[in-house]
Amino acid sequence: MDETINPFVTLKPTEERKGMSKMYFFINDYSEGAHAKVLQALTETNFEQTVGYGMDEYCAKAADLIRSKVASPNSAVHFLVGGTQVNLTVLSAILRPYQAVIAAKTGHIFVHETGAIEATGHKVLAVDTPDGKLTPKLILPVVKGHPDEHMVQPKVVFISDATEIGTLYTLAELTALSQFCQKYHLYLYLDGARLATALTGEGNDISLPDLARLTDVFYIGGTKNGALFGEALVINHPALQKDFRYSIKQRGGLLAKGRLLGLQFLALMQDDLYFQIAAHANQMAQRLQSGMAAQGYGFLTHSATNQIFPIFPDALLPELQSVCRFEVWGKADASHTVVRFVTSWATKEETVEGFLHALAGFKV
Amino acid sequence: MDETINPFVTLKPTEERKGMSKMYFFINDYSEGAHAKVLQALTETNFEQTVGYGMDEYCAKAADLIRSKVASPNSAVHFLVGGTQVNLTVLSAILRPYQAVIAAKTGHIFVHETGAIEATGHKVLAVDTPDGKLTPKLILPVVKGHPDEHMVQPKVVFISDATEIGTLYTLAELTALSQFCQKYHLYLYLDGARLATALTGEGNDISLPDLARLTDVFYIGGTKNGALFGEALVINHPALQKDFRYSIKQRGGLLAKGRLLGLQFLALMQDDLYFQIAAHANQMAQRLQSGMAAQGYGFLTHSATNQIFPIFPDALLPELQSVCRFEVWGKADASHTVVRFVTSWATKEETVEGFLHALAGFKV
Amino acid sequence: MDETINPFVTLKPTEERKGMSKMYFFINDYSEGAHAKVLQALTETNFEQTVGYGMDEYCAKAADLIRSKVASPNSAVHFLVGGTQVNLTVLSAILRPYQAVIAAKTGHIFVHETGAIEATGHKVLAVDTPDGKLTPKLILPVVKGHPDEHMVQPKVVFISDATEIGTLYTLAELTALSQFCQKYHLYLYLDGARLATALTGEGNDISLPDLARLTDVFYIGGTKNGALFGEALVINHPALQKDFRYSIKQRGGLLAKGRLLGLQFLALMQDDLYFQIAAHANQMAQRLQSGMAAQGYGFLTHSATNQIFPIFPDALLPELQSVCRFEVWGKADASHTVVRFVTSWATKEETVEGFLHALAGFKV
Amino acid sequence: MDETINPFVTLKPTEERKGMSKMYFFINDYSEGAHAKVLQALTETNFEQTVGYGMDEYCAKAADLIRSKVASPNSAVHFLVGGTQVNLTVLSAILRPYQAVIAAKTGHIFVHETGAIEATGHKVLAVDTPDGKLTPKLILPVVKGHPDEHMVQPKVVFISDATEIGTLYTLAELTALSQFCQKYHLYLYLDGARLATALTGEGNDISLPDLARLTDVFYIGGTKNGALFGEALVINHPALQKDFRYSIKQRGGLLAKGRLLGLQFLALMQDDLYFQIAAHANQMAQRLQSGMAAQGYGFLTHSATNQIFPIFPDALLPELQSVCRFEVWGKADASHTVVRFVTSWATKEETVEGFLHALAGFKV
Repeated sequence: MDETINPFVTLKPTEERKGMSKMYFFINDYSEGAHAKVLQALTETNFEQTVGYGMDEYCAKAADLIRSKVASPNSAVHFLVGGTQVNLTVLSAILRPYQAVIAAKTGHIFVHETGAIEATGHKVLAVDTPDGKLTPKLILPVVKGHPDEHMVQPKVVFISDATEIGTLYTLAELTALSQFCQKYHLYLYLDGARLATALTGEGNDISLPDLARLTDVFYIGGTKNGALFGEALVINHPALQKDFRYSIKQRGGLLAKGRLLGLQFLALMQDDLYFQIAAHANQMAQRLQSGMAAQGYGFLTHSATNQIFPIFPDALLPELQSVCRFEVWGKADASHTVVRFVTSWATKEETVEGFLHALAGFKV
Repeated sequence: MDETINPFVTLKPTEERKGMSKMYFFINDYSEGAHAKVLQALTETNFEQTVGYGMDEYCAKAADLIRSKVASPNSAVHFLVGGTQVNLTVLSAILRPYQAVIAAKTGHIFVHETGAIEATGHKVLAVDTPDGKLTPKLILPVVKGHPDEHMVQPKVVFISDATEIGTLYTLAELTALSQFCQKYHLYLYLDGARLATALTGEGNDISLPDLARLTDVFYIGGTKNGALFGEALVINHPALQKDFRYSIKQRGGLLAKGRLLGLQFLALMQDDLYFQIAAHANQMAQRLQSGMAAQGYGFLTHSATNQIFPIFPDALLPELQSVCRFEVWGKADASHTVVRFVTSWATKEETVEGFLHALAGFKV
Repeated sequence: MDETINPFVTLKPTEERKGMSKMYFFINDYSEGAHAKVLQALTETNFEQTVGYGMDEYCAKAADLIRSKVASPNSAVHFLVGGTQVNLTVLSAILRPYQAVIAAKTGHIFVHETGAIEATGHKVLAVDTPDGKLTPKLILPVVKGHPDEHMVQPKVVFISDATEIGTLYTLAELTALSQFCQKYHLYLYLDGARLATALTGEGNDISLPDLARLTDVFYIGGTKNGALFGEALVINHPALQKDFRYSIKQRGGLLAKGRLLGLQFLALMQDDLYFQIAAHANQMAQRLQSGMAAQGYGFLTHSATNQIFPIFPDALLPELQSVCRFEVWGKADASHTVVRFVTSWATKEETVEGFLHALAGFKV
Repeated sequence: MDETINPFVTLKPTEERKGMSKMYFFINDYSEGAHAKVLQALTETNFEQTVGYGMDEYCAKAADLIRSKVASPNSAVHFLVGGTQVNLTVLSAILRPYQAVIAAKTGHIFVHETGAIEATGHKVLAVDTPDGKLTPKLILPVVKGHPDEHMVQPKVVFISDATEIGTLYTLAELTALSQFCQKYHLYLYLDGARLATALTGEGNDISLPDLARLTDVFYIGGTKNGALFGEALVINHPALQKDFRYSIKQRGGLLAKGRLLGLQFLALMQDDLYFQIAAHANQMAQRLQSGMAAQGYGFLTHSATNQIFPIFPDALLPELQSVCRFEVWGKADASHTVVRFVTSWATKEETVEGFLHALAGFKV
């Protein structure tokens, strides 16, 4: 879902696309460049020379800073380029060949990574959820249903916060999951591709130290929140830390100029820039959501973060697409369609207001 | 399901088990040895010497005989030891790394092979079915739902006949599936672990030549119908035949004394012994089914083959287990349980009648 | 090498092959059937019914008997069908994804298993040896040469006894290897496809209990010494025993009628039949070797077991092939060829003498 | 070798490292940042919004430009982040499971990618070479030595230009390899991590169009020549182009902000900046090489590119390491060590001269 290229939005010839910058762009949060401070850090250090593969001083400092922010001095921190890479590297490193990972059916690893986890040899056991979130009650039947050696052995629980459909875990929910995992000897892994907007989302009560305390592994996503690219992986469980650089290298994820990753996370985590800009993304989305609601549109689900899922009459779609880029999510009913709008740290207030104004004009 | 060891049936100390031969044994169809003619063939040729790895004369003859029986002179025939081995070898040989196989949720490869297919790198896309059978209507959404490179590419349709829950395909259903697969450039693969009882089952109208004509690959199961072990793989699609012995060897399936496989299939396929003994297995199951029905018991589904799924009151289970070995399939309702009884080519009429008599005595 | 089909020996049409039984057959030791006592055990129990997948009483008894013979009451014993299957199942279960196995360049897993180990994701680090045997001195540079995460991490040492070229380890050599492996945190795995002829070979001073004491995992080969098929895997290291049945099932090696394996090993291990018949195989080979030497032929290496490697003038090969089947091993020099003759438990004295007599007649 | 972290050069505490910028830095060519024009392109477009995953206009333009430069309008061009990622993605996409890749023993994939190729299931068949270059004569025995299904099937020839030890292919050599591969139905794949310095190296007579004409797949390395990161993959053989984006995504190599890759290659390939800056790197290395030679030092091999391999007395190493960072390559003899110096597009003339001056002072 997330990464599906909208079939309505095909590449146009160059001439036509010139006008594109005037379009309102809500297609995703990785369409942006980097935050100015990130770019500045890269530029200022561009002519320095460092050792490669993440063994440089910037990576060391960024890892220290993250360990401090998550209040977990013994956690291991690694920097990788992208989310699918992190997921496949972590899961293939954690699991024995006959072990499997449990995920929501909407989980990114289940549908949108081209079988990347299976390609490393592991089954993804998918669970239907009402809201993209796993709970002990949903997981227990999977564990009980795999009792012997004729089936895979469930070993990791994979969750995302924010989920792939924009919902958030509460601290109570995360704590319950963590306790359940301990009881059943499962590892808890949290995909934080959109962790920034989750932790600054409406109603969130989870902190970075909570994540380090309650999960075995999680990652802090940079790509979708201010970095050019990069995800900071935090391995809390000591037994999972051993030899992890071997896994990164083997899966092609050890960036030669590793310092680029350290530099970006240093810039983002200093003075909590990471969270400030995520809060902006959320505000822009909430303004869009309330503005659409005021115009009478409904939603697939009430979103607390930077992805919103309005429902439009099918007849309105062509007009919308003439001024705006977004993703078609699926049919709501015979004559309505759910779409996804995503804002980012770089979304301007005038863009949001401009779009809402245009939308009012289209109103059927 | 199929291969789950019944938790009620744990191994007993030797003394106790001595009496076991007097128990009625309906736990599965691979609990038997080999048909007398198979054993005779192995015994008579025991002191011959042949070249290894299936390059011997017996394998050549058995392959010729099978090609003749399936009326497909250009099919490639290989002999392997067991069903999971065949499934993982075939699917890993057919699929490109990013391609996936579609199966019913009850399909053997989805749950009961310990992730063997995923261990070779491929996702199994599971489909809910009412009766264990796939149809074009059930498959189409899977194909449509995987439109681009962010998801796996469906490429093989996996079906079983008889299915894992004892149902049968009709010729019309198989023809429709075959046409659908051709239209969507999918390969059709049929798991024939219980092909013998399927093709002799009540209402079956499919023949071996139909299978060769309508599928790209299928196998003729020996383990569950008269052989000590062994499955005869028939590759009909020319493009899938190339280099197949490399795949068998790499996955550990090339039996050193390959002649053992050729010999067994020669014995089974000559004079259609294979089908004669399967018909007996079906008759025994049908007698059990009608006998239980006459005593007032219901069934999960009406079975046409050698697996039947009666429903008993929970209170009756301990008594049943005192005289009989079978598999618990699952709960029917709060106070009833579905169980599975399986007959085989070796099941004796007196065993069936004896059990039915005992059951009548237990009746609550 | 071992399993290479000799290109000189192609399958002949049936008519021609009728005379083949009169040929002297030294092509390999898996060309035979089963020892009479093994066949008898299978026949006598053929109509018994047992639970499947190796959970039956015969497997339990055979495992107990083997634990007793190897004097290692806490070893886990599993039965699998063939050697490549055992190797790939064990190595993929033991190794983490980035770890590798060290083997002699002549090691079966390096060349003759169609990349079966690599297909499970692991590199085989090959070492040149003069005699097919690994030593601490040969292994140390491999360990030292893989110091960091840019390379695989050596973790298992794979050896065969007898080796693929017929040589034997001494107890002192095996002890030195075992100590080296402990020091460097490597697992020691011994492939016993030809263990029977090794332990009864000229000059052998290793016993089954030595193997259990000095290796982490080894297997007792049945296929090449009296069984129809089957290898008994013995896992001595407690940490490697956990969940091993999952690995067997996932790799397609869990035989449905597991009792066939238990029965065969029961028959072979009782009264040391296994070693008695291996001693015969060795005697036949030694008679061949001394007989050829007496006729003036040299050897690639002096063999202590049932594989011998005589060197013949190229000009003699056509005559040899007219009466005898064997494997061409490689060129000795411009005009001479090394060939391999293998005897077995079933080789008759008259066959050996008959061949030597014929050879004397051919003498150039 | 290439990527081995020099054990002599461990990370120092921050205080000490402050002085490091005054050290002469020849440790590798990926220690640098990006060329100013690359950085400018990233900065100028930073606030543009584009679709993700390489479907943007910059990638389209860069691919067009590269197709034009390589004079192969039907080649497919993809952009990936790093070299190991490219190698494992290409090879796992090209090979059937039982097929293998032939490489020089010094080939990057054989030792320095932590078994990345094997982790995708494929054996790397390594060949001893005098100079890091493969030839038909060296490859033929590998092809002939793998005749049947008991061994892997060689299918790809992997070469690097420049090789991992700094040598270059000539057009005649590449043509011979290409013809050999066609004859034996092998694919020819060229790793171009250091293609820039190769094509501008002393004595080179190969052009980009030659590569497109003579190889099936090759890549143009950006990481080591002016980019922050990025490799441009060029797939010439039509049969290998199909569905390649699936492979990239599955292996974790599809960069969300794909435009970063397109932008960098646009900047590098315009006006042949890519080759101009590589020529500078070569000049700096050649000046180092001749300067060292003038001071009486020998070399492992005469280098034509930006990696040189001088031999120093062991006693000199501590002094060298006090002013200079480089990699220790191995022992030359009992008292001498081969080291590697690498220059880059960013190496300053004053750095080279400064170092040579210092070296003269150290002279033993």
